[in-house]
Amino acid sequence: MKVGIIGAGRIGKVHGESITNHIQDASVAAMADPYWTEDSRKWAKNMGIPAYDDYHDILKDPSIDAVLICSSTQTHAPISIEAIRAGKNVFCEKPISHDLSEIKAVIKELEKSRVKYQVGFNRRFDHNFRAIYNAVAGGQVGDIQIVKITSRDPDTPPIEYVKVSGGIFMDMMIHDFDMVRYLTASDVEEVYVNGAVLIDPKIGEAGDVDTAIVTMKLSNGALAVIDNSRRAVYGYDQRAEVFVSKGQVSVTNDCPSNAVLSTANGVVAEKPLHFFLERYMQAYATEVGEFLDAIKNDKQVPVSVNDGLQAVLIAKAADKSLAEHRPVKLSEIKF
Amino acid sequence: MKVGIIGAGRIGKVHGESITNHIQDASVAAMADPYWTEDSRKWAKNMGIPAYDDYHDILKDPSIDAVLICSSTQTHAPISIEAIRAGKNVFCEKPISHDLSEIKAVIKELEKSRVKYQVGFNRRFDHNFRAIYNAVAGGQVGDIQIVKITSRDPDTPPIEYVKVSGGIFMDMMIHDFDMVRYLTASDVEEVYVNGAVLIDPKIGEAGDVDTAIVTMKLSNGALAVIDNSRRAVYGYDQRAEVFVSKGQVSVTNDCPSNAVLSTANGVVAEKPLHFFLERYMQAYATEVGEFLDAIKNDKQVPVSVNDGLQAVLIAKAADKSLAEHRPVKLSEIKF
Amino acid sequence: MKVGIIGAGRIGKVHGESITNHIQDASVAAMADPYWTEDSRKWAKNMGIPAYDDYHDILKDPSIDAVLICSSTQTHAPISIEAIRAGKNVFCEKPISHDLSEIKAVIKELEKSRVKYQVGFNRRFDHNFRAIYNAVAGGQVGDIQIVKITSRDPDTPPIEYVKVSGGIFMDMMIHDFDMVRYLTASDVEEVYVNGAVLIDPKIGEAGDVDTAIVTMKLSNGALAVIDNSRRAVYGYDQRAEVFVSKGQVSVTNDCPSNAVLSTANGVVAEKPLHFFLERYMQAYATEVGEFLDAIKNDKQVPVSVNDGLQAVLIAKAADKSLAEHRPVKLSEIKF
Amino acid sequence: MKVGIIGAGRIGKVHGESITNHIQDASVAAMADPYWTEDSRKWAKNMGIPAYDDYHDILKDPSIDAVLICSSTQTHAPISIEAIRAGKNVFCEKPISHDLSEIKAVIKELEKSRVKYQVGFNRRFDHNFRAIYNAVAGGQVGDIQIVKITSRDPDTPPIEYVKVSGGIFMDMMIHDFDMVRYLTASDVEEVYVNGAVLIDPKIGEAGDVDTAIVTMKLSNGALAVIDNSRRAVYGYDQRAEVFVSKGQVSVTNDCPSNAVLSTANGVVAEKPLHFFLERYMQAYATEVGEFLDAIKNDKQVPVSVNDGLQAVLIAKAADKSLAEHRPVKLSEIKF
Repeated sequence: MKVGIIGAGRIGKVHGESITNHIQDASVAAMADPYWTEDSRKWAKNMGIPAYDDYHDILKDPSIDAVLICSSTQTHAPISIEAIRAGKNVFCEKPISHDLSEIKAVIKELEKSRVKYQVGFNRRFDHNFRAIYNAVAGGQVGDIQIVKITSRDPDTPPIEYVKVSGGIFMDMMIHDFDMVRYLTASDVEEVYVNGAVLIDPKIGEAGDVDTAIVTMKLSNGALAVIDNSRRAVYGYDQRAEVFVSKGQVSVTNDCPSNAVLSTANGVVAEKPLHFFLERYMQAYATEVGEFLDAIKNDKQVPVSVNDGLQAVLIAKAADKSLAEHRPVKLSEIKF
Repeated sequence: MKVGIIGAGRIGKVHGESITNHIQDASVAAMADPYWTEDSRKWAKNMGIPAYDDYHDILKDPSIDAVLICSSTQTHAPISIEAIRAGKNVFCEKPISHDLSEIKAVIKELEKSRVKYQVGFNRRFDHNFRAIYNAVAGGQVGDIQIVKITSRDPDTPPIEYVKVSGGIFMDMMIHDFDMVRYLTASDVEEVYVNGAVLIDPKIGEAGDVDTAIVTMKLSNGALAVIDNSRRAVYGYDQRAEVFVSKGQVSVTNDCPSNAVLSTANGVVAEKPLHFFLERYMQAYATEVGEFLDAIKNDKQVPVSVNDGLQAVLIAKAADKSLAEHRPVKLSEIKF
Repeated sequence: MKVGIIGAGRIGKVHGESITNHIQDASVAAMADPYWTEDSRKWAKNMGIPAYDDYHDILKDPSIDAVLICSSTQTHAPISIEAIRAGKNVFCEKPISHDLSEIKAVIKELEKSRVKYQVGFNRRFDHNFRAIYNAVAGGQVGDIQIVKITSRDPDTPPIEYVKVSGGIFMDMMIHDFDMVRYLTASDVEEVYVNGAVLIDPKIGEAGDVDTAIVTMKLSNGALAVIDNSRRAVYGYDQRAEVFVSKGQVSVTNDCPSNAVLSTANGVVAEKPLHFFLERYMQAYATEVGEFLDAIKNDKQVPVSVNDGLQAVLIAKAADKSLAEHRPVKLSEIKF
Repeated sequence: MKVGIIGAGRIGKVHGESITNHIQDASVAAMADPYWTEDSRKWAKNMGIPAYDDYHDILKDPSIDAVLICSSTQTHAPISIEAIRAGKNVFCEKPISHDLSEIKAVIKELEKSRVKYQVGFNRRFDHNFRAIYNAVAGGQVGDIQIVKITSRDPDTPPIEYVKVSGGIFMDMMIHDFDMVRYLTASDVEEVYVNGAVLIDPKIGEAGDVDTAIVTMKLSNGALAVIDNSRRAVYGYDQRAEVFVSKGQVSVTNDCPSNAVLSTANGVVAEKPLHFFLERYMQAYATEVGEFLDAIKNDKQVPVSVNDGLQAVLIAKAADKSLAEHRPVKLSEIKF
C-alpha cells in the first residue's frame, strides 16, 4: 500500500517514520509541503521519501492509495474534500476544522464517496487507555457512572501559537473530549466549564485560559470531568479513571524506566515520559496501521468523521459555557 | 482533663474509646444518651464510663472540662449553645446544623464566651491528607492551581437515613468541602453541581442524588473538583490531589496490608480499608487529642466554628446549583 | 488478667503501654527493674504502674497471671525457669538464651508445668507478614519453592552493644530465621553464610560482620535467602517474598503516609517507617494480646518454646558456616 | 552498513527485524541457515532479505561489514573464528561456548585481528537495568554492598532442550551472572549454589535443577545473590536491586499496560510482559545499534569477549559448587 503525506511538520514526520519502519506492506510514496526546511528535506532524503512542493501531485498519483493530511488546521477540510474527490482514502489530523460548515462539507463529500476517512485521535491507540476501554467495553464491569481524565502539558506553547490555536478546548482538550466518548461509547449532552488563567497572564490577554476543569453529562447518564493545565513541570500528565457499578479502572503515566532510588532524602521514581512524542510514539504507529488495515480489509475505521465532528461540537459548547458562565447543551450548537 | 460525651451512638463510642485508650491525661467522666441500648450500656460498663440519661447532668458537673456533642444532627446547635452557656469547651460533630440561623446563634453565643469550640472534620487529622497539607502549606511548592478530591462510600446508606440526611452535599460531601478549604487555606466562592441518580432510584425518589461531581472556584483563584459516589463496591475510596505551580502532591487509599499476590490470573493487591471507622480510627484520636491540647495550652482549635459554617454554606450553594442547574456564588446564600 | 513486666527498658515500656492502652481485660500490676532511671520511674508513675526493684516481688504476687521477661538476654533463661516454677505464664523476649543448655533447661521445666510460654517474635504479628502467611498457608497457592527476606536496620548499633550482642545472626537475623519458619511452616535443615564487613571496620574488629546473605535449605525442600545490613540510610527495610508453584506473594515497607510529590526533580514518596518501634507498634500489641488470649482460653501460644529454640539453632549454624566457610547442617549443632 | 546474519531461528529474526526497521544506515544484506523452514523463508522474502544456505557466502561477501552469529551454541566459537579471520566484525549470541578452550581460541584470534567482537547479553540494554547502572555508576550513591537479582522464566523449556542446554547456570543464569558484573563493574570471586528440583522431576532426571539460589562474593567486596526458577506462572519475572552505602536502587517488571482494575474481589494489575521477546524487544535493537555504532565510530563494544568469558567461568564454578556442595572460587576454574 502506498501512502502520501501532506505536510512535512513534526507530526507528518512521525507518521513517515512509523510507516517506513513499523508497518509491513506499506510505504511512503511521497511527502508534500510548500515550505520545506533544509532539515526536513534532509530527513526525507535519509528516509528515501520523495519531497514534493505541491500536494496535488500526490492527489494526482494513481498509485497512491491513501493520504495523511498533516498540514495546518485551516487546510484540513479543503484538502480532505479534494482528496476524497480524487478517490483517496484519507487520514486527517485533528481537528477536521474549527468551522462546522467545513466539517459538514466534508461529511457531504464522504456521503458521495466510498473512501475511508479517519480522524487522528491518536490516544485511542495508547496501550493504557485501550486497557481501560477493553475493561469497560461490553459492560462486563457494569454501567459507567463517572469518567475522570487528567491531561496536562509539560509547558505552555509559544504565545503566538496560543493566538491561532483555537483555544484550549479546540487545541488541547479536544483529545480528552474524544477520550470521554471513546471510553464510554457514549455521546456528550451538556458541558460546564470552570476556566482560569493561573500560569501565564499573556494567555489570558490572548483571550484563552491555561487551566480548566470541564464537567459533562453523557447521553448514557454518566458524568465526566476533565482537567487540563498548560504546564505540569513534572512532565506530560495523562491519566484516566472510569468508575463503574462493579468497580473502577484507572491508568497512570508511563515513565522512562520503573527504577526507584531510595536514599536518606526520600524514595524517588522517574518523572512521566516528557511529552506526546515520547508517550504516544507507539500509538501513532498503531493508528496509521489500523487505518491502512481498514482500507486493505474494507473494515470500519476506528475513528470516524462523526467522532471528529463530535469532539469539535463539544469544544464549541465548552467555548460557549466559558463565555456565558453556564452549562451548555450540545443541542445548542447549531450544525 | 475530664470529658463528657453526649450521644452514645457509633461516633460517641469511637471517641470514648480513643480518649480512654490513647489520650494521656484525659478520661471520659460520663456519657449521656436518652435511649441507651443494652449493648451500649454494656460497652460503657466495660469501659468504666458512667452512663447518664440526661446530658444536662454532664453540663451541670463542674469537674467536666469539655463536652463532645455526638448526638443527632438537629440537636447539635441547641446543645452547643447550652454547653457554651455552661462554660464547657465544646467539640461538635459535623454539621453544626442544617439551619444557618442556628449556626449564627452558636457563633453569637461563642462571641460572649471564652470556651473553645471545635467542629468534627476528622479527615483533617488523617496522616495522608495532612501530608498533602504539609507539602503545600507555606507555598514551598508554589501556588495551588487545581484540587481534586475523590470520596466514595462502600455502599448506600438505608433509604430511611437518606431521607433525613440533609442530602448528599450536607451529609457526605461536606467533608470534602472542608477538605478543599483545609488543603488550600482558601475559601470557596462559587460552586457548580453535576448530579445524577445512577445507583438506586429510591435515592432519587427521596429527592437526593447518589453520584455528583462538583466544581468550585476558590477565593485564591484556584479551581477544585470533588466527585462523590454512594457506592464503590471495592471499598471506601478517599483520595486527593493538589496540583501546584511547581508540581503535584497526591495521596491514595490505605489498605489492610500491602501484600501483592501474583498468579496466572493477575497481580492482586488488597482493597482499601473498608469504611471510615477503619480508615480514620487514628484521625479520630488525633482530632480529640488536638482539641484537648488546645484547651490545656490555650491554643487555637484546629477546626473553628467558621470552618463548620463555611462547609454548610458550600453545601447550601451546592443544593441551589443542583436545583437551579447553574453555577451559584456563595454570596447568594443569605447568612 | 494481671500482668507483671520484668525489665523497664525500651521493650518493657512498649509492652506496658500497649497492655494499658490497647488490651481490654488486662492491666499491668507491676514492673520490676533493679536499675530504674528517673525517666522510667516518671513514665511508670504516669502510666499508674507500681515500680518494683526486685522481680521476685512479681513472681511472689499470687494475683499476677503472667509475666513478660524484658530484661537483658543473659537473664531470660534463669528468670524463665523461676517464673515457670512460680506458676506464672511466661512471655519471654527473644532470644531465650545464647546458650543451648539453658534453653534445654527451660524446656525441661516447661515439661513439668502447665503454664504457657511464648517467645517474642513480634514480626509474626505484623499485618503485612501475616498477609503472606495467610496467602500461602494451607497450600492454596501451591507449594513453597523460594522464600526471600530483606531485613536492614536504619543504622549500626553502638559498638559496645555489638560486642555483647551475640553477633548479627543471634541479635538481628534471628527474627528473619523465625520468619522463614513462620511463613513456610517448615524447619531449616542447612544454612550457608556469605558475610562481610562493608559498613564499619569496628564491627569487624569486634568479631562480627555488618552485611550478610544467608541461604537455606528447608525440610519441605524449599530454598530460602535472607539479606541483612546494619545500615540502610533510607530507613528500616523489612520486606519478604514467597514464591510458590502457583505464583508469588510479596510485601514491602509501610510508610508514614502514601503521599507522592511530583516536581521537576522527580516523583518522591516517603521513606519507610524509621525503625522497629514505628513499624511494629501494632504487632507488639497483637503478640501480647494473643498471648493473654491463649492463657484465658487455654489455646496454644502462637510462638512456642520450640520456635525460640529453632531460631537459636539456626543462628548457631550460621555462626559455624561463617567461621568454617561451608554449608552447615542444623543436625551438626549439638542440642 | 551491511550486516549478515548467521542462523535463521527466533533470535536471528529478532535481529533481522530490528536492523531493518529500527536502525538507520544499516541493512541486512543476507541471512544464512542450512535448514530453512518454509515459514522462515517466507519471512525473509517479506523482509526483503536474501536467504543463503551456507554462511560462508556471507563471510566471503566483501560488502558485508559485520556478522551476527545466531546459530546453535556449539557453532558459536568455530564460526566466530572463521568470521574474525574473514575480517568481519562479530556479534555473537551468548554463550560463546560451553568449552573454555574454544573461548580461549576465539580470544587468541581476536588478539591477531582489529575487528570488533560483542557478546549478546541483551539485558544490559534494557531501560530498567540501565537505569540502575546509571544510578550506581561512578559511585554517586556510594559503594555497592548487596546486589539482588530475580530471574524467572514463565515456563519450563522442553525436556529435550534441557538435556542439551548446558544446565540452568550456562543456559539461563548466565544472563544474571553478566548482570551482576554489569551493575557492579566488578568481577566475581566465589560462588555458592543452593539448587533443587521443585518443578519437574524430569529436569532432575536430566541432571539439572529447576530452582536455584546462588550467592557470590565480588572482587570489590560486595555480596550478590541471584534466584532463578524455570517456571513463574505469572510470567517472566526480571527484577534487580542494588543496595549501596547511600541507599538502594531497584527495578521491577514492565507490564502490557499500567491499568488497575478495582472490584469487590480486589485490586488487580496486569501480569509482567510474558517472556523475553516482549520484555527485551527494545533491548535487542539497542544492543545491535550500539554494536554497529562501535564499528562505525571505532568505539569500544559495550559487551566484550572477556565479559562473555567471565559469565561462562561463573557458570562453571556454579556447576562445581552444586556438584561438590561447597563454595567455589573462580580461581579454581582452569582457563
